[in-house]
Amino acid sequence: MQGNTFGTILQLTTFGESHGKAIGGIIAGVPSGLEIPLDFIQKELDLRRPGQSSITTSRNEKDKVEILSGLENNISTGMPIGFIIFNEDKKSNDYEYLKDVFRPGHADFTYHAKYGIRSVAGGGRSSARETACRVVGGAIAKLLLKYYGIELIAYVEQVEKIKCKKSFRNKKINELLEFREKNSVRCPDKISSEKMIKCIENAKYSGNTVGGIIYCKTSFLPVGLGEPVFNKLQALLAHAMLSINAVKGFEYGKGFESVNFYGSKLNDIIYKSKNGIVKTKTNNAGGIAGGISNGMPIYFRVAFKPVSTVMNEQESIDKTGNKIKIKNSGRHDPCVLPRAVPIVEAMTALVLADSLLQLKLSKL
Amino acid sequence: MQGNTFGTILQLTTFGESHGKAIGGIIAGVPSGLEIPLDFIQKELDLRRPGQSSITTSRNEKDKVEILSGLENNISTGMPIGFIIFNEDKKSNDYEYLKDVFRPGHADFTYHAKYGIRSVAGGGRSSARETACRVVGGAIAKLLLKYYGIELIAYVEQVEKIKCKKSFRNKKINELLEFREKNSVRCPDKISSEKMIKCIENAKYSGNTVGGIIYCKTSFLPVGLGEPVFNKLQALLAHAMLSINAVKGFEYGKGFESVNFYGSKLNDIIYKSKNGIVKTKTNNAGGIAGGISNGMPIYFRVAFKPVSTVMNEQESIDKTGNKIKIKNSGRHDPCVLPRAVPIVEAMTALVLADSLLQLKLSKL
Amino acid sequence: MQGNTFGTILQLTTFGESHGKAIGGIIAGVPSGLEIPLDFIQKELDLRRPGQSSITTSRNEKDKVEILSGLENNISTGMPIGFIIFNEDKKSNDYEYLKDVFRPGHADFTYHAKYGIRSVAGGGRSSARETACRVVGGAIAKLLLKYYGIELIAYVEQVEKIKCKKSFRNKKINELLEFREKNSVRCPDKISSEKMIKCIENAKYSGNTVGGIIYCKTSFLPVGLGEPVFNKLQALLAHAMLSINAVKGFEYGKGFESVNFYGSKLNDIIYKSKNGIVKTKTNNAGGIAGGISNGMPIYFRVAFKPVSTVMNEQESIDKTGNKIKIKNSGRHDPCVLPRAVPIVEAMTALVLADSLLQLKLSKL
Amino acid sequence: MQGNTFGTILQLTTFGESHGKAIGGIIAGVPSGLEIPLDFIQKELDLRRPGQSSITTSRNEKDKVEILSGLENNISTGMPIGFIIFNEDKKSNDYEYLKDVFRPGHADFTYHAKYGIRSVAGGGRSSARETACRVVGGAIAKLLLKYYGIELIAYVEQVEKIKCKKSFRNKKINELLEFREKNSVRCPDKISSEKMIKCIENAKYSGNTVGGIIYCKTSFLPVGLGEPVFNKLQALLAHAMLSINAVKGFEYGKGFESVNFYGSKLNDIIYKSKNGIVKTKTNNAGGIAGGISNGMPIYFRVAFKPVSTVMNEQESIDKTGNKIKIKNSGRHDPCVLPRAVPIVEAMTALVLADSLLQLKLSKL
Repeated sequence: MQGNTFGTILQLTTFGESHGKAIGGIIAGVPSGLEIPLDFIQKELDLRRPGQSSITTSRNEKDKVEILSGLENNISTGMPIGFIIFNEDKKSNDYEYLKDVFRPGHADFTYHAKYGIRSVAGGGRSSARETACRVVGGAIAKLLLKYYGIELIAYVEQVEKIKCKKSFRNKKINELLEFREKNSVRCPDKISSEKMIKCIENAKYSGNTVGGIIYCKTSFLPVGLGEPVFNKLQALLAHAMLSINAVKGFEYGKGFESVNFYGSKLNDIIYKSKNGIVKTKTNNAGGIAGGISNGMPIYFRVAFKPVSTVMNEQESIDKTGNKIKIKNSGRHDPCVLPRAVPIVEAMTALVLADSLLQLKLSKL
Repeated sequence: MQGNTFGTILQLTTFGESHGKAIGGIIAGVPSGLEIPLDFIQKELDLRRPGQSSITTSRNEKDKVEILSGLENNISTGMPIGFIIFNEDKKSNDYEYLKDVFRPGHADFTYHAKYGIRSVAGGGRSSARETACRVVGGAIAKLLLKYYGIELIAYVEQVEKIKCKKSFRNKKINELLEFREKNSVRCPDKISSEKMIKCIENAKYSGNTVGGIIYCKTSFLPVGLGEPVFNKLQALLAHAMLSINAVKGFEYGKGFESVNFYGSKLNDIIYKSKNGIVKTKTNNAGGIAGGISNGMPIYFRVAFKPVSTVMNEQESIDKTGNKIKIKNSGRHDPCVLPRAVPIVEAMTALVLADSLLQLKLSKL
Repeated sequence: MQGNTFGTILQLTTFGESHGKAIGGIIAGVPSGLEIPLDFIQKELDLRRPGQSSITTSRNEKDKVEILSGLENNISTGMPIGFIIFNEDKKSNDYEYLKDVFRPGHADFTYHAKYGIRSVAGGGRSSARETACRVVGGAIAKLLLKYYGIELIAYVEQVEKIKCKKSFRNKKINELLEFREKNSVRCPDKISSEKMIKCIENAKYSGNTVGGIIYCKTSFLPVGLGEPVFNKLQALLAHAMLSINAVKGFEYGKGFESVNFYGSKLNDIIYKSKNGIVKTKTNNAGGIAGGISNGMPIYFRVAFKPVSTVMNEQESIDKTGNKIKIKNSGRHDPCVLPRAVPIVEAMTALVLADSLLQLKLSKL
Repeated sequence: MQGNTFGTILQLTTFGESHGKAIGGIIAGVPSGLEIPLDFIQKELDLRRPGQSSITTSRNEKDKVEILSGLENNISTGMPIGFIIFNEDKKSNDYEYLKDVFRPGHADFTYHAKYGIRSVAGGGRSSARETACRVVGGAIAKLLLKYYGIELIAYVEQVEKIKCKKSFRNKKINELLEFREKNSVRCPDKISSEKMIKCIENAKYSGNTVGGIIYCKTSFLPVGLGEPVFNKLQALLAHAMLSINAVKGFEYGKGFESVNFYGSKLNDIIYKSKNGIVKTKTNNAGGIAGGISNGMPIYFRVAFKPVSTVMNEQESIDKTGNKIKIKNSGRHDPCVLPRAVPIVEAMTALVLADSLLQLKLSKL
């Protein structure tokens, strides 16, 4: 009910604060018989792990996940999969100064107002640290998708004003994956990536932060994912993306740009390919028609604002409303995009895998 | 489960096809004691009604809603509110030619593939006619919001490339409402609205369609709407918006534009106003921090593609995969934006009212 | 959320008060491709209809159901099935005297306290009239079960102290059905049924009411219905039964009597039958092991109290707490059991059909 | 979806197998501001712990619970409360012989058939070990109830044919609690308890098992718990009870016995007490009218069968259908009732606390 669970059949429920003993969760609804190699989950987590490079936070969490149930010899049994990640490198004292004040752009004030009490250290549950649990859930969702031959990738398409070349959108997923992992910013375009890294380093140096855009696309999908009316596939994806900290916008297919075209121009012509599969000649729709996947690749873009934790002194108020000056310390990312890539993938995988399971229910 | 229900506590469940006997729904979770004037609901519905003007479809539905339960002398009793709208002006024969073919850009193919059977006439349940039920639910949600002093408005900000002046975003809600209703395109900016209408008429004349952008904003809100992690307020709004037919993108606050700013520039400074209310000096965040409303107005933008039903002949395939030529008939909107305004408002109201009820549960 | 929806995948949501304009509901989650003959639904409803015989209420409702959506030539399309039953024979004035008083044993006081307002006429939503909607949902669930070869029956096993012979429990379902419909009390045992009718007539004559027990059993079932831990099949059945007005107890398999046996005596020995099906030699368990159907028939018993609406004068209080004398009028059943038989069947069918759909999700 | 979550607003989600690394869960929906002393939770768990006395299993689990999130200085923050209990004293080898066989009366066959794979050791998730997590959830629910002044107790009322004196039902909760904890069988009646213990010891000695009945009652409750139609309070309680392993029946108020009375006799007369509270003179209804608590104490009875794990040799089949002889080993309870007492209390507390939170939503 209260927003700690995501999904309808495949359900991820999470708990945990940034500086508590542990974070973790329960993944329910995984059908029995799925092979779940633990090192695959850990590898996914490592993509999100803090302390990976010079452009991410220096907090050094191993993010070692332990699976506690639901498997028998690494095969899913149909029972809920419990998991835990202990918090290790927390320096909660770094946050003492925040006990009674509200940082601009953070959840400090809203949590305080809504609950009257909050876990101050590390931002508590409002910290993006909770997304590690999403990555665990997403890893299992990815395995389910792989079983059905579905793949997906996300990469950084823009950092501040620096844009990855559009032509990369048309590259194959495995190629993109290879290119993406060659640099710390997770942009497949070598030239842009170097500029992006420089841009982030500059921001970091000046105690500032920058935002950007993540592009995500899937392989050709089965037809039929998504439910009519309120749970259209794009609605579930938008929900998933906007639930990630710092996300400000979502568009799929031609997105906002659609507005500039006539309907006759935008419509994708349907045809039957030589191997008997129904396809569309163009894919302006982004792989979804009437809220249901039409078999073409899905693609969308997600805008991340520059995170709020800048190092410059800022004005704000304390609990009693007194005007104060505040200067962040703690360890933070100058740009969340590189580490957000696996989170976007995880949430996408959760939506698609859940939809795939629901597809079993559409016909008699 | 299957996408016919929206909301957590305030729940709207709907049924009905475009050319069936009736459409309708059940609104559960309305607390007892709310005054619900039936003419208010009807007035909201009238804003969405087809056949309003020269730039909307000529289908002439009265869309007369009948409330069947849950009220005692127009006061909510806490019981579910059932309602029905009979379909009157349906010309189902207009759709005979669609029985075995798939229109480009429509849900014909995906519904066929997912269910193996579909209600052809009028697009069945994939028709935007179902949104009439959302407007009924939204009207009741609006009454709940009004009870707590909350208001909201949506208006057409862009049609194809014609943009309403940005300065209108800062006008008061009641002013905007007054201006908006002065023209058939529902844009408060007189000069732009005239161009928009012309643009739509041109599209209609050439059998084509155009898209655009709707802007929506609320009054100052209570602090605390939205739930942590997966049900952040912006995630629920994005879900709501992307569940509307033809929507391709959503952004709130500074949205995609945030990417161009430094964090230090984007952060909204918190202060205590003279009357003791906590506010922010700017509102780049769009009224939400950490997924929870911070008391400032929420605002967001929704991109609608030009709808797929163009009147030119198009290529496609039939059920058996044969190539065909198709030419739409039936009565359709050349631009859905004017009629989408009340739908955006309805979905926004449903999200906010639901969140408002959940707020009762946050503290002991 | 608020108790107007039943089921997980197959979901029935209902609305309506006893003396409102109409009652009705929405059945979601029916897979596409199921044949749904409308006369079958009506026939089921007719079994519950008031005014059937001398031992039921004289309120004369035709209970004519209208299906509004979700079908195409009587085949389910996978879309929600909306339905409506208009209330016709209401004599709301009969209830004027109840406006400000609380009847003993009724929901008058609790609804008043919980909601501060209530639909007085006919008991509003607390009236068993809402169960007509359950029967509509149950009829569709039965069709789904039939498609998979599953049958079930409920019959009156006891009225006050008069018991149907136990040996009837072992008869075949179609035989029981034939016998049951030969008398107005819905007990398959001719001799007991005559005594039961007399007992009910006596109660009616003296303005009093009597209770009894309904026995329900299914045919051999597929193995695998029910979910572990919190949604064990027996838990869902118990929930379903105790949600029916006037039900005070539920037991399945050997039920309360199990207490008198040793474990070694009660255990059902598992064997493989000649046709390769796994069975148990006895069925003390009642067809469920570990919360999951084991393939044997399920059987259970449901206790109904005598309904509260007696015609004798009773003491009570009014809204302001003043002591009053109250004498019921209106038209009521002296014994609800005959009309409760189709309701027990409907709720059982909803649980089983829902579980059957969930079974599709257990394995990869 | 799959039965691992219980509750609507206050939601307990659990994971874990009997012989896995750990069991645990997440409790969501606890409002902020509740004091949660960890030793209270542990004390509740200790009541359920195996190895307490000569009449329970000799498995020796400390059942030490660790709370991982959701608290700040033992005060709830409104965030989900994660917890974990590591499995320590598991002798999984004891279960090797079960790998390919199905024990009579157990979930071996049904889990195998439903999932095709199962955690054999200790019965996996079908073991009653999962109820430890319910007790943790129940402890927090009890604290919420206590905050609102609500108390409850369960005790063993019958073991096999030995019955506790009925007069104990009328004793005060704190008195019952005191008496109950004076003996290992958890029956407040000293004389009966001694007989019960002897009966259980006899069963144990002969490798057999016995069942019994647990009685549960609450203090005077707030009016208004429970939701209309499908979520009547008694339906939720029945669901909760029948979700406990080995439970075969549930009755509340006069239960099955109601059948023997006339309506006029059974109706509870409503009056206003001297301190202005509305009460009923008798409480045959068991504290619920129309599915909603009427302010009087709720009481109900739950029947437990003798558990299936008898030590005598039994006939059964293996995976391939071959007839086999099976003789249980492992450590088991000859009678689950003493240890089921805290489980019944926990599930009752979860239902009542959840209903109490929902009550906040009934009126404007």
